[in-house]
Amino acid sequence: MDYHLWDKLAEDNETKIVYLIIDGVGDLAVPERGLSAMQAANTPNLDHLAARSATGMLEIVGPGITPGSGPGHLSLFGYDPLEYVVGRGVLAALGTEFPLQHADVPARVNFATIDEQGNVVDRRAGRISNETNERLGEKIRRNVDMEIEGVQLFFEKVKEHRALLVLRGEGLSGDLADTDPQETGVPPLEPRGISPPAGRTAGIVQQFVDQVREVLTDEPRANMILLRGFDLYETYPSITERFKLRGLSIAGYPMYRGVTKLIGMDLHPVVGNVAGRFDALEAEYGDGYDFYFLHAKQADARGEDGDFEAKVQVLEDVDAFVPKLTALEPDVLVVTGDHSTPCALKYHSWHPVPVILNSRYARVDDVDRYDEYSCTRGSLGLRPGVHLMGLALAHAGRLAKYGA
Amino acid sequence: MDYHLWDKLAEDNETKIVYLIIDGVGDLAVPERGLSAMQAANTPNLDHLAARSATGMLEIVGPGITPGSGPGHLSLFGYDPLEYVVGRGVLAALGTEFPLQHADVPARVNFATIDEQGNVVDRRAGRISNETNERLGEKIRRNVDMEIEGVQLFFEKVKEHRALLVLRGEGLSGDLADTDPQETGVPPLEPRGISPPAGRTAGIVQQFVDQVREVLTDEPRANMILLRGFDLYETYPSITERFKLRGLSIAGYPMYRGVTKLIGMDLHPVVGNVAGRFDALEAEYGDGYDFYFLHAKQADARGEDGDFEAKVQVLEDVDAFVPKLTALEPDVLVVTGDHSTPCALKYHSWHPVPVILNSRYARVDDVDRYDEYSCTRGSLGLRPGVHLMGLALAHAGRLAKYGA
Repeated sequence: MDYHLWDKLAEDNETKIVYLIIDGVGDLAVPERGLSAMQAANTPNLDHLAARSATGMLEIVGPGITPGSGPGHLSLFGYDPLEYVVGRGVLAALGTEFPLQHADVPARVNFATIDEQGNVVDRRAGRISNETNERLGEKIRRNVDMEIEGVQLFFEKVKEHRALLVLRGEGLSGDLADTDPQETGVPPLEPRGISPPAGRTAGIVQQFVDQVREVLTDEPRANMILLRGFDLYETYPSITERFKLRGLSIAGYPMYRGVTKLIGMDLHPVVGNVAGRFDALEAEYGDGYDFYFLHAKQADARGEDGDFEAKVQVLEDVDAFVPKLTALEPDVLVVTGDHSTPCALKYHSWHPVPVILNSRYARVDDVDRYDEYSCTRGSLGLRPGVHLMGLALAHAGRLAKYGA
Repeated sequence: MDYHLWDKLAEDNETKIVYLIIDGVGDLAVPERGLSAMQAANTPNLDHLAARSATGMLEIVGPGITPGSGPGHLSLFGYDPLEYVVGRGVLAALGTEFPLQHADVPARVNFATIDEQGNVVDRRAGRISNETNERLGEKIRRNVDMEIEGVQLFFEKVKEHRALLVLRGEGLSGDLADTDPQETGVPPLEPRGISPPAGRTAGIVQQFVDQVREVLTDEPRANMILLRGFDLYETYPSITERFKLRGLSIAGYPMYRGVTKLIGMDLHPVVGNVAGRFDALEAEYGDGYDFYFLHAKQADARGEDGDFEAKVQVLEDVDAFVPKLTALEPDVLVVTGDHSTPCALKYHSWHPVPVILNSRYARVDDVDRYDEYSCTRGSLGLRPGVHLMGLALAHAGRLAKYGA
């Protein structure tokens, strides 16, 4: 199906949709326990919610495809991640809340250390402090030409050793290779266009990098910058344009804030822990928005650590907050993840993630556990992740009938 | 997959396929009973058939998409409803058995009542009788120019206050807005082209409507016509061309008769009740056709009433006729619906519908109940509705191998 059919059928009404996205929630049973972290976790609230809901499995991008966080989230929000391709540079820019404009070219910056021969010795400049980052940014902005060949350049702090470069001007290309060599003992790569039209943009970046190197030459650690993830930013249709939803994003990390800003959601100020984000949802829930996204990060992080017990604990911690969601009585409440992060892999994976869809119009199945095994028996079946938004809209009464 | 692959692989043979379509069959469990109407119904024949068949769930148009009856049926017949888009005007024309030709422009007509100021006071003219409808049609055909600017006009009775207008000629457009204002106290809208090439067609319709208004001016109730659902009729490839099937449609309502005529099925004369339609199938079953469509309407109607007990009764009534189908021993017997119509919604819905596919080559699963919950465990899985025809053809031995 062409998912833009939803755009044509979307109607506004008074209903509210809440998404709780537990990052990296899906896992695999580990041999020593015979259970996955989800199965081992004591999650009475999620289980009770599953018992009153339709459940199923979401294959987030496609068969065998391991989603990055950007595609993973886009899929859940109804943006086919093969149609909407967004690079790290754009996400990083949006995550800093830099006011990116259409046709800007952002890139991620690492401060790095190079030796006297010009070879990279530390790709993160010893993870310099936020304060040093700020001082260096100021130094660059004061001493480097921030307009080259009619193109404006913006250099912004992210944190620690990370910063953001944005080029703004006519006829720019995002088709540039990384200058980060991804290893030490070799020099940074020259800015280089991947396609011929990118040559001019590469030349501008080259002039900028050369000047930065001059300006940072006496710095003890951060005496160079490495660039990666060049992107041309093209604005996406928002969830308001597509689905007539006014969205609020409650997330802590730049990536998730970025992807939701990209699709036109308002960003709640950063709340550093998941408890605070549930409180924020409670406080914000009301007339202003009809779509709420709450992001819980730690299950993914513990999966990447390969720490089974810690992941179990994270799931139990999240479970304890679920009554706060159900107390709001949203018309549609979704719990799922943007991808699996199995402890056995210590990395994102392609395995489908379990989903709960709670609504008075859900076809409640007999699944009464929220885990990757139980939910395979759910009434929603196994389906692409991008289906979720269509189902959420339908259960909220927000999609008109198709055809006579 | 491109579903036209079936067209390339279709082969004719001696087998017969029967579709029993129970309109609006799918539902939701209602809280007060803890069961859906299908679960509550005593349907021993359907259950026994399910036990000897492959079962599954069909998502008729797509995730979250509530099918209209036209798209719902097209999907079951193997016509992707996003590729084959058919409007109300065409369906209405086909349902009256008007011999529509390629590039005709049909529209639905309501006789209406307007007051002295020209404002609509009754959009249905008090639901005039069929006899009055016939008399008014005759009056119009005698007194109004039925050829305007070289375009032929046809004005045909449907029933009660409903009629059909068809324009036939060179260079017509179906891109016309409705003249029905959909409310009372305002005048009918002027015929208006939505796209510039429709201007001439709108002008012809305007001349026609002006004359009709003159002719009906002394009628007590039906003194005006309102038009809606203009369409350009473009013939579809038939099931004979696509699938080498000769089809017989046994349905009572214009909508379903229309959609099956659109794809080249012969129409059995109208039989007003479902019992008569099962008898008709029994009588017609033989050498003439190899695809039979039997439509049972009332489950949808009772779902739209929100009448749980009545829907249960309808399902039990249909069940009683199932032995008539199985006695024919068709090579493939399909039982499903064109969409769900949950009593809780009183409207069509997006929820998948359960399907039974009986054939000596079916992979019989352990599902032994025909309902929306049991069939989620079936061997056919959850799949798009348009898959059904491919599966039916295959189980009838009518699809050649793909590739060497």
